[in-house]
Amino acid sequence: MTIRLYCFGESGNSYKAALALELSGLGWEPVYVDFFNGETRSPEFRALNEMGEAPVMVDGDLVLAQSGVIQDYVVEKSGKLGVATPEERREILRWTLWDNHKLSSPAGMTRFLIHFLPKDKQPQGVIPFTQARLNAAYKTLNQHLQNRDWVAANHLTIADLSCCSYLYYPEPFGFERKDWPHIDAWLSRISDTPGWKHPYDLMPGSPADRASQEGKTT
Amino acid sequence: MTIRLYCFGESGNSYKAALALELSGLGWEPVYVDFFNGETRSPEFRALNEMGEAPVMVDGDLVLAQSGVIQDYVVEKSGKLGVATPEERREILRWTLWDNHKLSSPAGMTRFLIHFLPKDKQPQGVIPFTQARLNAAYKTLNQHLQNRDWVAANHLTIADLSCCSYLYYPEPFGFERKDWPHIDAWLSRISDTPGWKHPYDLMPGSPADRASQEGKTT
Repeated sequence: MTIRLYCFGESGNSYKAALALELSGLGWEPVYVDFFNGETRSPEFRALNEMGEAPVMVDGDLVLAQSGVIQDYVVEKSGKLGVATPEERREILRWTLWDNHKLSSPAGMTRFLIHFLPKDKQPQGVIPFTQARLNAAYKTLNQHLQNRDWVAANHLTIADLSCCSYLYYPEPFGFERKDWPHIDAWLSRISDTPGWKHPYDLMPGSPADRASQEGKTT
Repeated sequence: MTIRLYCFGESGNSYKAALALELSGLGWEPVYVDFFNGETRSPEFRALNEMGEAPVMVDGDLVLAQSGVIQDYVVEKSGKLGVATPEERREILRWTLWDNHKLSSPAGMTRFLIHFLPKDKQPQGVIPFTQARLNAAYKTLNQHLQNRDWVAANHLTIADLSCCSYLYYPEPFGFERKDWPHIDAWLSRISDTPGWKHPYDLMPGSPADRASQEGKTT
């Protein structure tokens, strides 16, 4: 049975899971989550994931939430994108936790506030605050990648696919590749990997889709 | 050799690691990190942890950062506070990631902005924004604990010690135990565990310490 991933294109957290599935070679298909019309907050979706978040992966009877858990399962099932030693396994966990806390969380939030909320609903003061915190995170990651090709091992792992996720999106939220040369080179290494796809090509849903949908209904 | 944990009392993330060490029965000792005078941003501390954050654990030659990684190591070394099955292991990872992203990160931030920054340096608009996000997190956790005693298994695990950490602190930041009865009961279950200690009793450093220090130097 094909693995199903509940996801949507704009979600960097969904992208972490989708890209791991895609690059692992496992068979999978996306199931579109209509986040912008409130689907993740619906009782039906909460029955699938009590946390009310995408992505959710369904593999037969197994239902998993949290991108880091899905990535871990992809490694276990495919034998790809993981590591061999306890030390490297801890490095994956370390950078996945750091990413969830310091990078993806404020990046996703900042991008959402700037691009996916009406201007008159943007909370005052939050965007510059999260951007300042993000700058500290870019600095840490850029420094980490100064003398190494990959985040957690000497090859591509799920830790790379966690940290990179929000950094490929085209909507500007304060991250400029040219300002962070080691991050820039690393993002190119990841996107040069055979099979790599951009989030809007890998998952259903994008700002362009929604604009054309709105065009049809108005 | 005794395990050393670089930590400070006000840090809920340090508390996650310290409480896991304490309840596991492993021998350990705290090393005070002078966060409020910038120690985590110093080159010396960055040499220990490139992420510039507490806690950091040192066990002989092994240096680990990120509370979730340290907790994982404590389970491995002590055989305590962990789980037996892959399903439960995924539950630990799921709630640890959720906590890092949705609960501890905004809770630590909100408490810091309210209590540890001078009033005139508080960024406008951020506190109500993070408090609204926290409310959604309390709701998710309260619901999860409605029909169960512990977060990830049928006994206390490191997932409980991750999610609970900021919720024991006395400085008000918007979390009221009485508003969330299932969280309240669970916090009592954890603090009733033999060997449990409050963060300010387990680690050096507290607002009271700093106030008395300032009293001495002025």
